[in-house]
Amino acid sequence: MSPLLYTYGDDAPIAAPATPLAECALAIIRTSGKNTIPLVASVFSRPRKLLEAPGNTVVHGWILDKNEKIDEVLVSVYRGPRSYTGEDSADISCHGGITTVQGVMRVLHRAGFRDSLPGEFTFRAFMTGKLDLTRAESVMELVSAKTDEARSHAVNRLSGSLEQEVLSIQDQLVQVLAGTEIFLDYSEDEFMGNPGVLDDEAAGRLPDRALAEKALARLRVLAQSYRMERLYHEGALVVIAGRPNAGKSSLFNRLLKEDRSIVTDIPGTTRDWIEGWISIEGIPIRLVDTAGIREAEPGGDIEKLGMERSRELLKDADLVLYVVDGSCPSDTGEGMRFFPDFLPQDPKRILSLRNKIDLCAPEALLEQRAGSFQGISAKTGWGIPELASAIAARLTLACGGKETRGTSSGIGTERQKGLISVAIQSLEAALALADRGEPLDLIAPLLGEGVHALGEITGAVSTADMLEVMFSRFCVGK
Amino acid sequence: MSPLLYTYGDDAPIAAPATPLAECALAIIRTSGKNTIPLVASVFSRPRKLLEAPGNTVVHGWILDKNEKIDEVLVSVYRGPRSYTGEDSADISCHGGITTVQGVMRVLHRAGFRDSLPGEFTFRAFMTGKLDLTRAESVMELVSAKTDEARSHAVNRLSGSLEQEVLSIQDQLVQVLAGTEIFLDYSEDEFMGNPGVLDDEAAGRLPDRALAEKALARLRVLAQSYRMERLYHEGALVVIAGRPNAGKSSLFNRLLKEDRSIVTDIPGTTRDWIEGWISIEGIPIRLVDTAGIREAEPGGDIEKLGMERSRELLKDADLVLYVVDGSCPSDTGEGMRFFPDFLPQDPKRILSLRNKIDLCAPEALLEQRAGSFQGISAKTGWGIPELASAIAARLTLACGGKETRGTSSGIGTERQKGLISVAIQSLEAALALADRGEPLDLIAPLLGEGVHALGEITGAVSTADMLEVMFSRFCVGK
Repeated sequence: MSPLLYTYGDDAPIAAPATPLAECALAIIRTSGKNTIPLVASVFSRPRKLLEAPGNTVVHGWILDKNEKIDEVLVSVYRGPRSYTGEDSADISCHGGITTVQGVMRVLHRAGFRDSLPGEFTFRAFMTGKLDLTRAESVMELVSAKTDEARSHAVNRLSGSLEQEVLSIQDQLVQVLAGTEIFLDYSEDEFMGNPGVLDDEAAGRLPDRALAEKALARLRVLAQSYRMERLYHEGALVVIAGRPNAGKSSLFNRLLKEDRSIVTDIPGTTRDWIEGWISIEGIPIRLVDTAGIREAEPGGDIEKLGMERSRELLKDADLVLYVVDGSCPSDTGEGMRFFPDFLPQDPKRILSLRNKIDLCAPEALLEQRAGSFQGISAKTGWGIPELASAIAARLTLACGGKETRGTSSGIGTERQKGLISVAIQSLEAALALADRGEPLDLIAPLLGEGVHALGEITGAVSTADMLEVMFSRFCVGK
Repeated sequence: MSPLLYTYGDDAPIAAPATPLAECALAIIRTSGKNTIPLVASVFSRPRKLLEAPGNTVVHGWILDKNEKIDEVLVSVYRGPRSYTGEDSADISCHGGITTVQGVMRVLHRAGFRDSLPGEFTFRAFMTGKLDLTRAESVMELVSAKTDEARSHAVNRLSGSLEQEVLSIQDQLVQVLAGTEIFLDYSEDEFMGNPGVLDDEAAGRLPDRALAEKALARLRVLAQSYRMERLYHEGALVVIAGRPNAGKSSLFNRLLKEDRSIVTDIPGTTRDWIEGWISIEGIPIRLVDTAGIREAEPGGDIEKLGMERSRELLKDADLVLYVVDGSCPSDTGEGMRFFPDFLPQDPKRILSLRNKIDLCAPEALLEQRAGSFQGISAKTGWGIPELASAIAARLTLACGGKETRGTSSGIGTERQKGLISVAIQSLEAALALADRGEPLDLIAPLLGEGVHALGEITGAVSTADMLEVMFSRFCVGK
């Protein structure tokens, strides 16, 4: 059966490798769903032992294909609801070879398991009430966190910090809404014969208005946290630009050498130019050296292509490190004239650097202190720690400044951000109506929209479509 | 402390990721050694629960760095000797992100764990008597098996097939040796005063000679199994060669398309030519297309370099698929003249193929049946299944023919092969001495050498150096 025919939301037995297919010591194959334990037992060397195993215990044995031994494994048995998915499930820990994992999966297919859809284990955890949506989303954030700072933020959400904040704001809004509705009910029931009183009472007097304003302020803090969270999670694009021989490659290598905390290549990046990931104050930075892009015959097609690529990179850059040769006196003046059209319009997105400061005469150093160029020596490392601080400051400034960094209950995903915005807009509209003295029966639905949006964030309110879109972005086996 | 200062053979607490550092659903960090459970408990959110956990149970909680949550994990607790290593150990299953694994490892280091050396978990399993050496080695074979057939052979060794065969042959040799030594003891004690009887008895009469010959025959079967095991484990190099336009690339693509069972790239292979891994009848085959190697201007430096590379590939090839354009009548005749110096001397290492058979007239087809060229059409797929069978037949023939494939207790490593050879040589020398009527006190030491060599295979007899060399080839976390 094609994967397209499966849908989220059934309780069919599913299986998937939860570790990469690679040569390594161990691999984990996850299973969950109806009859999971008996189905695994049907291809296990000690079926009775497995069937009788209590939850949270480990059974040693072999996965068998009829009588042929496929691999020696440890099976961790979980009995619902005490499991990740809330269903009966089993994690099979086998040897880490590619053929071993493929062999075990083949046997599980024959036993009746189907391949899991992306994120289907976490989807089931949500459906059985083990995780709210903010925690479910944090699972994917954790997996893709590039720095320890990003991991730490995702862990906060996993442990429920965002869920609690959203629930608490939602509580406040529900109180405000309940106040209006009690008033409306009351007024309809009791003041029916006295429309003058109703109008007077219902207009311009939002009960618990102070509470509504508190909730709005908290929502705005959350909304503001998003750009910073994205900065720490997805990182920033920092591009080194400047004339040939300004020392772009030396600076690139120096920054890369000073920080090798991001050890892996991020797959899918192009190799047409030189780039690497570094971490500065916990911010993952994709650092690109534009040197080499233009190194074909001048005017030729390849040069044009190279310029187009440089332009694209500089356009997308969160920050451009514009390097001039500081040992060449004229360069700091006319430096900015090199490809000025390519550089960002916003001066906050450019850091101008005077490289080769080690070759400068002392008077040049004095002069540069007054200028807008920051002095560095990629060769000796002079000024590099200051440069790193400046990079971090510029990047965090663009996200609202360092003071927003401490928010432990920041927003982690675009989906959450969108719903927070909906809640803010609804609440702002409600307060505006109240300011204009509009009746409560126009204001109450807007408050209801806000409550609804917050419910969607945690998943208390959700639609099947939204869930499917959200979980299909997960990796398989999660 | 630098890893160089650690040595195999202590019981220090060790930790290592057992899964690749990559974005995936789950990761496993293995720990083992003295105080493992209390040390993990010291950084765990539910220390008492962990300390009191019986072996083979799973505890849910958080890894903590002081009060900061690093990740939500499942800890599988194993109490020695009921564990992989035979020691107390714990497998920590955490989220599969890179920073998550790094974060947990950092906390474990602070708690007192050191990084494990390559293969150190399996080394400890050997030292505590959980695995003999043939099983320990099969663990690494399993991890690197490229096809299901290779995995199946390694699993047989893991389940003890080779260990049992070697122990059984060793038993036979020990019986033969014991027979000679009893005889020697007896003759020295009892026949002291009668040298004539001693000489007569001790010379030329190897007790249990028939048993010694049986053991030798079994050792030879094992020795013969090695080339076949290597073929299935490491695979063969098959190179496609021939004139330009003979259809080399079409054949390459056709073979690759028919089999995509080896999904991963094998790291470290050069990309100067086109190659891919396929599996034919369970044999992993590195298929190389030499088309494109020579495509520079004739006589130029690049052409020379290309020819050098073609020569190297053809020299190393286990089998060359020599392709001619079958639609061009003259080509089958003079085909072999293209780069004849490059082709292997041994005709068994060349399969001559007449491609584009779909373009041939019927009489040409009849003619080709009689010839040494096998007809194929890379374009239509005609003759490709027969070609696959022929490739498998040629490759297995070079390893002693298909009849040796059934040996379920084949040899898996060079080390085992070397020791089997030592045992065979000792036994052959012993039997030769017996044939020449030499006295038993010359023969007995040779039998002893054979027994010793077999003991080294299982590890019953071992030296620290040998163990260190062997286990250091393992991957970390194994």
